[in-house]
Amino acid sequence: MAAPRRIDLVLDSVKRLLRIGATANLLNLLQKQHPADLAQVFGNLLDNERQAVFSVLVERNPRLAMETVSEMGPEPGAVLLATRAAEDIAKLLQEIASDDAAALIDYLPEELSRQVLELMRPRESGQVESLLEYGEQTAGRIMNPSVFALSEDLTVGEAIIALQGSRDVEMVFYLYVVDARRHLVGVTSLRRLLLVSPETPLKRIMTADLIAVRVDTDQEEVARQVASYNLLAVPVVDEESKLVGIITVDDVIDVIKDEATEDLYRLAGVSGDERVSTPPFEALSKRLPWLAVNLVTAFLTVSVVAYFEDTIARVTALAIFMPVVAGMGGNAGMQTLTVIVRGLALGELSWGNARKTFFKEAAIGLGHGLVLGVLAAGVVWVTTREPMLGLLLAMAMVCNMFVATVAGTLVPLGLKAMRVDPALASSVFITTCTDVVGFGSFLGLATIFLQYLTPS
Amino acid sequence: MAAPRRIDLVLDSVKRLLRIGATANLLNLLQKQHPADLAQVFGNLLDNERQAVFSVLVERNPRLAMETVSEMGPEPGAVLLATRAAEDIAKLLQEIASDDAAALIDYLPEELSRQVLELMRPRESGQVESLLEYGEQTAGRIMNPSVFALSEDLTVGEAIIALQGSRDVEMVFYLYVVDARRHLVGVTSLRRLLLVSPETPLKRIMTADLIAVRVDTDQEEVARQVASYNLLAVPVVDEESKLVGIITVDDVIDVIKDEATEDLYRLAGVSGDERVSTPPFEALSKRLPWLAVNLVTAFLTVSVVAYFEDTIARVTALAIFMPVVAGMGGNAGMQTLTVIVRGLALGELSWGNARKTFFKEAAIGLGHGLVLGVLAAGVVWVTTREPMLGLLLAMAMVCNMFVATVAGTLVPLGLKAMRVDPALASSVFITTCTDVVGFGSFLGLATIFLQYLTPS
Repeated sequence: MAAPRRIDLVLDSVKRLLRIGATANLLNLLQKQHPADLAQVFGNLLDNERQAVFSVLVERNPRLAMETVSEMGPEPGAVLLATRAAEDIAKLLQEIASDDAAALIDYLPEELSRQVLELMRPRESGQVESLLEYGEQTAGRIMNPSVFALSEDLTVGEAIIALQGSRDVEMVFYLYVVDARRHLVGVTSLRRLLLVSPETPLKRIMTADLIAVRVDTDQEEVARQVASYNLLAVPVVDEESKLVGIITVDDVIDVIKDEATEDLYRLAGVSGDERVSTPPFEALSKRLPWLAVNLVTAFLTVSVVAYFEDTIARVTALAIFMPVVAGMGGNAGMQTLTVIVRGLALGELSWGNARKTFFKEAAIGLGHGLVLGVLAAGVVWVTTREPMLGLLLAMAMVCNMFVATVAGTLVPLGLKAMRVDPALASSVFITTCTDVVGFGSFLGLATIFLQYLTPS
Repeated sequence: MAAPRRIDLVLDSVKRLLRIGATANLLNLLQKQHPADLAQVFGNLLDNERQAVFSVLVERNPRLAMETVSEMGPEPGAVLLATRAAEDIAKLLQEIASDDAAALIDYLPEELSRQVLELMRPRESGQVESLLEYGEQTAGRIMNPSVFALSEDLTVGEAIIALQGSRDVEMVFYLYVVDARRHLVGVTSLRRLLLVSPETPLKRIMTADLIAVRVDTDQEEVARQVASYNLLAVPVVDEESKLVGIITVDDVIDVIKDEATEDLYRLAGVSGDERVSTPPFEALSKRLPWLAVNLVTAFLTVSVVAYFEDTIARVTALAIFMPVVAGMGGNAGMQTLTVIVRGLALGELSWGNARKTFFKEAAIGLGHGLVLGVLAAGVVWVTTREPMLGLLLAMAMVCNMFVATVAGTLVPLGLKAMRVDPALASSVFITTCTDVVGFGSFLGLATIFLQYLTPS
């Protein structure tokens, strides 16, 4: 049982052994760790420490070194790998499965990845190259092409012998059955092999009705199927229904985590592939476009406020309270938006219940506007002795929070209808909307009822 | 291969068959579906339709009906189940695994759940009750107590016979080995059983070094271990290291999804258990406290702006541009906050690289402030012909975006240090901070350089 605390102890020891140059002890410690734990330790080392530790490990235990690099994830893994010569990289990549190798090569600098592919054994570089030909985020890209398959003409006894001879294949508990031309025709399990006599034809105990995905299926759809049907793996077939690979549940977990990160990031305007480890300048440039769009919309808000410049000049108190209306609308809108975006992602919200959800959110917006508007009006009344100012604030809040929840529902649903990711750019729409309506309604109402307000 | 489109077809047919009262056809259609698909169909029916369809299914195929209820998730599942009499519920719950039954009972109205437990067979209600005794969100709560275990004294041949006799146990590919007092002593696999002769003692082919979790381990930690070590299941042991249950990877996927939802929700101030299906009034009351807290902080901002009332009264243009400073700071802060919160959740950020991340974010804040501040200043200069107003805006933006990224890093790290969820309440801190600093710095600078600004 590896509690986080244990990782910290290992990390401290690694740093210390490296500092005092105790290479043998360091290697000894490293070899006792699981690659997933080593990946976490590597992530917490400084760049130069990480390279030094990697050098020690790669010399003596290239397999563990490469498993660790795989566990680190393709981007940081490729950065670490790129510190070695192309010949080394080509040899090291043969230690891991070709889907993991492909993912790493994809993130190497272009020139280096070309060299590495040339230096790899033809069979392996061929496998990697064909994986890289599939579109990004498709089943073909994340599948492992080493899938164990049994011919439909075998008996159970022959199947068991074939199984005993297989090595290093992923997930041998789902046994896929193929015909002579490698078309996927059925599935059975190790357990079922044990329940019948060895002479039984495999065909008799296989299930012909099985779930498979195509190489061009979106990885999110693959994850949805594996998760909802509680599968441990799903076979991947090509256009001709030939078995070409397998996607296992551990890869699906990575996809689910990545998709959740993407939703979270999109709502905040961060690009999906940014990580804590992304270099500063790259992170700065990736986040800049979103802020630039927000600057443009901010000036849209400015023009709304500017339209009421005369009103503000006459009653300065309006400038003081107007951020409350816009801010509360923004918060209410983001609450709704988040529930809707997540509901869409988890499949809990669809066209069937969209109408009901819309009315629910509209009612919540009105309810919150009334409750909080009255509260805010009371505070304004007590502090400024101007009941009219409070009343205007309450009216603007009801209006803006209603608009916020309505927009928070319609914008992601509208994007979904247009087949755009509902999380993408939704929050710019919502905050622009709540800013414009918030400032506009408050200052607009104030302009209409100007004669009832005390000039400053 | 069930594309979302297929579900919609099934949904339409279900609605139509129900409307025309074609019960036999409806039942026929339902029985061809996977419980996971039926759960999705159920989620998209209106309340009265759902109850009607459930009634039809439960009479003829109680197992499929209950599997569907389980797939719907405990909360909506319990709502549907609660429409039946207590006697029915008690009998129906015996169709599913006791962990699923416990989760459903937990969400039934209190009086009903008490009745149901009394009406269940003693053995089953005992299992359910002991599961419900474990703390929420612990391994004990989500484990399945029906775990298949082999005695360490068996031979491989005897183990295979034991396996052939077992039914309905989860995940028989990890074979856990226990001693006479049911202490977990090792693990082996079906595949390894096939590779050796039947006389081999089980002890010889088992791995004694295995990963297990305790009943009181937090479910998030269970998910972390299963995900990082690429496990298909993890055994659960009690205080005395006795094997008491198993958690399979499909349950872990649910935990991972829930935790991601929780992070997303917390950043937007929505409580973790709200779903699209949550009734309007409940959703309204659950979101209200967050908005109320934001209203309080909004008045804090108001007091900052009010402090500069005289300045605003003299230069109304300040009121027009001040939302830009606060808004851009808020956006920059939320970007940083999201990256940090997600980095902590995925284990990519820890104390080891916190310092580096802090400097990176501070640099990004300064960089964005400079780039966007200069841009904004240009726009102000061109539109108002007041270079000084633009300069003040740029200075305030640099200041506020720097503060935003610094706060966006320190607040979640600080909460983490205090062992509070880093996502919880972080965004209130950040936006309050960027509002106060945004309005304060812009109006403060304007007050200092008031003589250089054109009075309105």
